[in-house]
Amino acid sequence: MKAFASDNWAAACPEVMKALIEANNGHAPAYGDDELTKKANRIFKKHFGEKAETYFVYNGTAANIISLATANNSFNAIICSEHAHINLDECGAPEKFLGTKLIGIPNTDGKLTVEMIEKHSEALRYPHQVVPKTISISQPTELGTLYTIEEMTAIGNFAKANNLYFHVDGARIANAAVALNVDFETMISDTGVDILSFGGTKNGLMFGEAVVVLNDKLKSNFELYRKQGMQLASKMRYISAQFIALMQNNVWKRNAGQANSMTMLLAEKLSKYTEIQLTQVVETNGIWVKMNEDIAKKLQSISFFHPWNPENNEYRIMTSWDTTKEDVERFLGIL
Amino acid sequence: MKAFASDNWAAACPEVMKALIEANNGHAPAYGDDELTKKANRIFKKHFGEKAETYFVYNGTAANIISLATANNSFNAIICSEHAHINLDECGAPEKFLGTKLIGIPNTDGKLTVEMIEKHSEALRYPHQVVPKTISISQPTELGTLYTIEEMTAIGNFAKANNLYFHVDGARIANAAVALNVDFETMISDTGVDILSFGGTKNGLMFGEAVVVLNDKLKSNFELYRKQGMQLASKMRYISAQFIALMQNNVWKRNAGQANSMTMLLAEKLSKYTEIQLTQVVETNGIWVKMNEDIAKKLQSISFFHPWNPENNEYRIMTSWDTTKEDVERFLGIL
Amino acid sequence: MKAFASDNWAAACPEVMKALIEANNGHAPAYGDDELTKKANRIFKKHFGEKAETYFVYNGTAANIISLATANNSFNAIICSEHAHINLDECGAPEKFLGTKLIGIPNTDGKLTVEMIEKHSEALRYPHQVVPKTISISQPTELGTLYTIEEMTAIGNFAKANNLYFHVDGARIANAAVALNVDFETMISDTGVDILSFGGTKNGLMFGEAVVVLNDKLKSNFELYRKQGMQLASKMRYISAQFIALMQNNVWKRNAGQANSMTMLLAEKLSKYTEIQLTQVVETNGIWVKMNEDIAKKLQSISFFHPWNPENNEYRIMTSWDTTKEDVERFLGIL
Amino acid sequence: MKAFASDNWAAACPEVMKALIEANNGHAPAYGDDELTKKANRIFKKHFGEKAETYFVYNGTAANIISLATANNSFNAIICSEHAHINLDECGAPEKFLGTKLIGIPNTDGKLTVEMIEKHSEALRYPHQVVPKTISISQPTELGTLYTIEEMTAIGNFAKANNLYFHVDGARIANAAVALNVDFETMISDTGVDILSFGGTKNGLMFGEAVVVLNDKLKSNFELYRKQGMQLASKMRYISAQFIALMQNNVWKRNAGQANSMTMLLAEKLSKYTEIQLTQVVETNGIWVKMNEDIAKKLQSISFFHPWNPENNEYRIMTSWDTTKEDVERFLGIL
Repeated sequence: MKAFASDNWAAACPEVMKALIEANNGHAPAYGDDELTKKANRIFKKHFGEKAETYFVYNGTAANIISLATANNSFNAIICSEHAHINLDECGAPEKFLGTKLIGIPNTDGKLTVEMIEKHSEALRYPHQVVPKTISISQPTELGTLYTIEEMTAIGNFAKANNLYFHVDGARIANAAVALNVDFETMISDTGVDILSFGGTKNGLMFGEAVVVLNDKLKSNFELYRKQGMQLASKMRYISAQFIALMQNNVWKRNAGQANSMTMLLAEKLSKYTEIQLTQVVETNGIWVKMNEDIAKKLQSISFFHPWNPENNEYRIMTSWDTTKEDVERFLGIL
Repeated sequence: MKAFASDNWAAACPEVMKALIEANNGHAPAYGDDELTKKANRIFKKHFGEKAETYFVYNGTAANIISLATANNSFNAIICSEHAHINLDECGAPEKFLGTKLIGIPNTDGKLTVEMIEKHSEALRYPHQVVPKTISISQPTELGTLYTIEEMTAIGNFAKANNLYFHVDGARIANAAVALNVDFETMISDTGVDILSFGGTKNGLMFGEAVVVLNDKLKSNFELYRKQGMQLASKMRYISAQFIALMQNNVWKRNAGQANSMTMLLAEKLSKYTEIQLTQVVETNGIWVKMNEDIAKKLQSISFFHPWNPENNEYRIMTSWDTTKEDVERFLGIL
Repeated sequence: MKAFASDNWAAACPEVMKALIEANNGHAPAYGDDELTKKANRIFKKHFGEKAETYFVYNGTAANIISLATANNSFNAIICSEHAHINLDECGAPEKFLGTKLIGIPNTDGKLTVEMIEKHSEALRYPHQVVPKTISISQPTELGTLYTIEEMTAIGNFAKANNLYFHVDGARIANAAVALNVDFETMISDTGVDILSFGGTKNGLMFGEAVVVLNDKLKSNFELYRKQGMQLASKMRYISAQFIALMQNNVWKRNAGQANSMTMLLAEKLSKYTEIQLTQVVETNGIWVKMNEDIAKKLQSISFFHPWNPENNEYRIMTSWDTTKEDVERFLGIL
Repeated sequence: MKAFASDNWAAACPEVMKALIEANNGHAPAYGDDELTKKANRIFKKHFGEKAETYFVYNGTAANIISLATANNSFNAIICSEHAHINLDECGAPEKFLGTKLIGIPNTDGKLTVEMIEKHSEALRYPHQVVPKTISISQPTELGTLYTIEEMTAIGNFAKANNLYFHVDGARIANAAVALNVDFETMISDTGVDILSFGGTKNGLMFGEAVVVLNDKLKSNFELYRKQGMQLASKMRYISAQFIALMQNNVWKRNAGQANSMTMLLAEKLSKYTEIQLTQVVETNGIWVKMNEDIAKKLQSISFFHPWNPENNEYRIMTSWDTTKEDVERFLGIL
């Protein structure tokens, strides 16, 4: 029985496992000088356009931190949501590795607006205050919500006009693309994003994340920060092979689509229980709900999921690429 | 045809691949709360004694840096060989993550003696100079040489007597254990080592390294530094599964033994060519040689290996767990 | 004509200048091994009790940062007011030097309550989130308000009970002591403060701040962090001599008293103008007011003072040790 | 009786003290927006040429670290002498604040040659090794020796040709200029130096050092790094006033000249004692000598000076701006 805890509790999908088995064949140059890594980079260009350079790292924290390292000096500030993973769930990794302050803007749905950003985008009382240099959003957000293409474009335009970089934490970017029914070039390259953390692990990989760099200025130091940031994989072919499997034949889309649709099914069914209230709009593969402890314990006895705000009786329920209708039905069967 | 470039050019060994396939089954708690990770930790206790706590990270740079972070404040210094991987080949990761100075002691064979260490082990002109706090050695060294158990014990005793920590970079620790014909408890736990970077990738893993902590003082902050150091794997079961495969049934020993014995075979055969001179004692799975460019190019046309000191015509030739007699013979056949 | 811009626009007071001239006599051991530094330390013990060890640094940013460095690891968090100088006006120095996240709690008067602190004092989702380790308050606050002895004691008790350190940014601590009519031992040593940034520059020094350490655990590394933090003065006698002059014969009290009473006079007079509204309770030597731009410009044409929130027409007016009744009258004469 | 310990044991010279007394007059804008700071900057332009921008900091460690921060990313390396103050005597401040590796080149007289630099100036095994970006020399060196104008020009040319920055630690730069009988423009601006730590404290200031930036690229972030580096003086006029006093009317030259000539006198007299051997060429205001402990103790009983290499019976004897013939004679009288 599968958990509804997080998409990172799921295994690797079959295509990825097959690719790993195939890649496990004889010797290959280390540190990314192998053929699979080159091929993976070419495939990312197909998804993001020719200007995209893609670099692989081990995990999502690293994808974010190394991205942000290329874009900021220590005296800069990064504008983000108070709920941002970089602000809350990376144990201070940005402050440690960059020496940079995060400005976590309060909000209720995980999303920043240009209006919110504008209030924090200027350096005040030079040189006493940090100088904002990067806007970092999560798509989808840490609360499962989505920026529309228009909203992303508005932020991208604001960034360019104000000499700021635009970073997207896309730990679940495939779920966003499926939900918005757009390709990555439309959602990312064309909206003014400079650098993207492209999630693999939560979309069916065993391990590995990609950073897609669209702004030339952020390319020149990436490999040095990656190495110094302890993220240069010696047997890189194994990350590359997984990404090739994911990005070809729309496996990413199928995986994300399954997770999203199972969340929709679950949300629809949950909405019939008056003692369970959704606390966020359901747009991708996570549901935020309030329910009393008894109901929660019953459901958790079938499949584990995490409390979100314990003092509010709020919980998060997530689906993954391998969640099935049967899983949903068995889960809710206890109610 | 396999390369003689580095043991990290090799694929994962069959047992490891099998373990990954088996681990790829349904959901498991993320971030190390899974059963495989617990099992792996227990297995390491069998090899290192009950006081050993083992933590998994992605790569060797991280194993070293997170280890050293637990042991040093920024005003401390780490005493190491000038050839140490932490000193030369991690792009300044120790300085970046720890803010700590490395004291790289000159030597010709990669090894530190207590006498060498003693000269640098005291803080001078307090508080103007950094305060040495950790001795870090590599076993085997970056030049393929070995510390004997007596030499390690001497360093361990010196460390204890002088209130210093003793760290071992064991990226190829299995090759050392096989060469010395000792178990890990004898070589590491009993010689006074406080913390060990235990290499997996170069001994037949797809990815993953372990840090074995033997000193209680270095355990309490490890998980926080690992997370902040971008090294907490969400799907950790896949690292753990590989280590279980490696550490059970003496797979580690067979892999290292094969690499070592193929290096011995190669060294024996090379020693017959007067135009090729060994520059280091051959003790594990690498050979350092001088030869003229013509010979090097011929050999490289069969199987690639790296130049070491180009200005000296010095090269490094390495074998790995999958190197065979046939590989060696074909390689040398061109001479 | 003196400005009402900031107490750091004022010169050094006569006793301080006299002490500098007297100290400027022949040779003295460098780096704090001189007699004046020892004497200054003894005088601080009289003010704070025998357990106080006092260390001198150059400026207030450094007093705060080196204090906090002794108390936190990089994975820790510091709980402070959103208005805190460390959060807003030190250009990210805490993040850079400590690698530590600040949790800036929203509030309207610059003050933290135990209730506010409590919500942020626990490490959640270990090891994903930073671990709170220090509470840092400013006394008086950056908005001129004061913690009562009871409020400070409550925070001190909460800190001890929760294994947190208690730091006070006392850039204007003398103004607080005068306003509360208490000595430093009562306000600081007896309320559970572990470490205090004791301001000198804003109370009539030419340069120099003191850090008073009351918790033994925070003493052992102070001198190393101070040196590594670029704050070890070679000719330290000149900072020490100024502090001796300030702390003897109640010069600190007279200086702070004059600044406070001139602010009270000014506040009283300003309160008669209906077009000028106080926005904070006036308790020390600064006044926060709203007024329209015309009035502000008129006043600034006599003596400069800084805008605070330009969008709100809010301004800050400060007095210093050398502000006189005549200064106040001339300033308001234009209205 | 004056010590021969270090030029930072000396007091401030009369002109500097007079300037401080005069500057101590009423209010002045904080943080360097005052008239004295502007005037000091203009005076430095007279000494270094119009392209020079000068920034004041508190001490020599800071002058070096903030200079180097403007020139290096964390993955870079700084090439320096093993004896360099930044390498030995700043308690790891460069590693802490920059995250950068120092490459300390062995030598016997404190000086680097282009030949030595060349061997370390290239990034090897990209991206595994740090990328050298800055050459930092000390003029005079930490062993009292001097680079000729030709030697500095050679290093400057090498730096430009290899896309490296050229930093000079000039804690005693005035002593060098006097010894070489050149002005600062000739020694620094015209030899290709990009950024200079200009020492004040050891040349008769109470406190304060200047950073003279000659390369436009290193100017843009200086003020932000200075603030974040805890080195922005609020009452900056007091540093500026001292530098104005020092740099006008050749006070710097008189101070350095007196120190140098007293060292020469001392060296001449010491050379007559066969039991005392000079270990370095005497060129500025310090003497390195070997002598047995008895003689050293006798001399130290008159005036203190520091041991240098205790195991070698080597000592350092320094003079300062206030050392007189009578001091020298009384000192040597005991022999």
